[in-house]
Amino acid sequence: MNRPQHIERMVEAIKRFPGIGPKMAERISYHLVKISQNEVDRFINSIISARAAMRYCSKCFNLSESDPCPICSDDLRDKTILCIVETPQDLIAVSKAKEYNGLYFVLGGALSPLDAVGPGDIRTDLLIKRLREDSISEAILATDTDSKGETTALYLAEIIKPLKIKVTRLGYGLPAGGDIEYADEITISRAISGRKEM
Amino acid sequence: MNRPQHIERMVEAIKRFPGIGPKMAERISYHLVKISQNEVDRFINSIISARAAMRYCSKCFNLSESDPCPICSDDLRDKTILCIVETPQDLIAVSKAKEYNGLYFVLGGALSPLDAVGPGDIRTDLLIKRLREDSISEAILATDTDSKGETTALYLAEIIKPLKIKVTRLGYGLPAGGDIEYADEITISRAISGRKEM
Repeated sequence: MNRPQHIERMVEAIKRFPGIGPKMAERISYHLVKISQNEVDRFINSIISARAAMRYCSKCFNLSESDPCPICSDDLRDKTILCIVETPQDLIAVSKAKEYNGLYFVLGGALSPLDAVGPGDIRTDLLIKRLREDSISEAILATDTDSKGETTALYLAEIIKPLKIKVTRLGYGLPAGGDIEYADEITISRAISGRKEM
Repeated sequence: MNRPQHIERMVEAIKRFPGIGPKMAERISYHLVKISQNEVDRFINSIISARAAMRYCSKCFNLSESDPCPICSDDLRDKTILCIVETPQDLIAVSKAKEYNGLYFVLGGALSPLDAVGPGDIRTDLLIKRLREDSISEAILATDTDSKGETTALYLAEIIKPLKIKVTRLGYGLPAGGDIEYADEITISRAISGRKEM
């Protein structure tokens, strides 16, 4: 017997979630059929209301419930340093480390020639515009330390340096081949103190 | 900065999915905010229509689009052998192996004293009723080979034997500590041929 068609349709949708393989998708599908109506309603409503409430901050492109986001509208932050991350999750991971009190910029991805993701597919133009218009003195490259993140950092260093802005990269403590959003807070704190010029 | 409240609410719901930890739940939450309206609609509709269409078969308690399910209503199957599994996913895994042509019974879980799951929490009474009323000559215990599944098999063997029904357990080829739904078809085929009496 094959899987019922209705399960198949859910599996197809869930397999597209990041990090979810076909077996996990099957498990989650059966789970979503078996749980109470109350629980499934709560889940579906959380998706619908999050999608209605969340927006991209027009300054940093963080996903937030307000625009500008709470970080960009915080007057106590150092507006001369910009930390450049791949995703909103990375922004939260860096901000939790509490070592950093500047502003952020979310690229929305990383360069990946193999997946045909080039500079036009992430927010490089908007980043350059931001760096030009605001008086940023230092750009911290906090992209992942896997090959996509490193490629992106190299590329960004290349295009930011001509603007006479100091470019640094999170350094000390980050394990190679890793993903920033999974790093613990101490590791991120150390990486911020130990950042080095590129 | 902490996670926005709306993301928090999704993470809470998604963390309850089987096999999903908090970090994965966060990733999926952001994914569900970022994907197109079309894609999220397709996902939500697949849940709603699956929940409306799927029911438990009143004979074997498989999750199916019809009652009785296609297996229970298949006249070509050997109605004297009953294969007892923990979940609908396990049933599909066993049926794909094609070595087995009898009927099934889905327990809906496994005994787990540590989680306070006792015989009253899975379908043991309905299983005994089924074995008594139908003329079953052999019960194949196809519960997982982890400690819960083994405990369940031992318990079931104990309560089925007094009914003068031959009790066998999937044997050959199953790795220890494993989960039946992840086994490949050849391993399951061998386990069915090599089953041994308990």
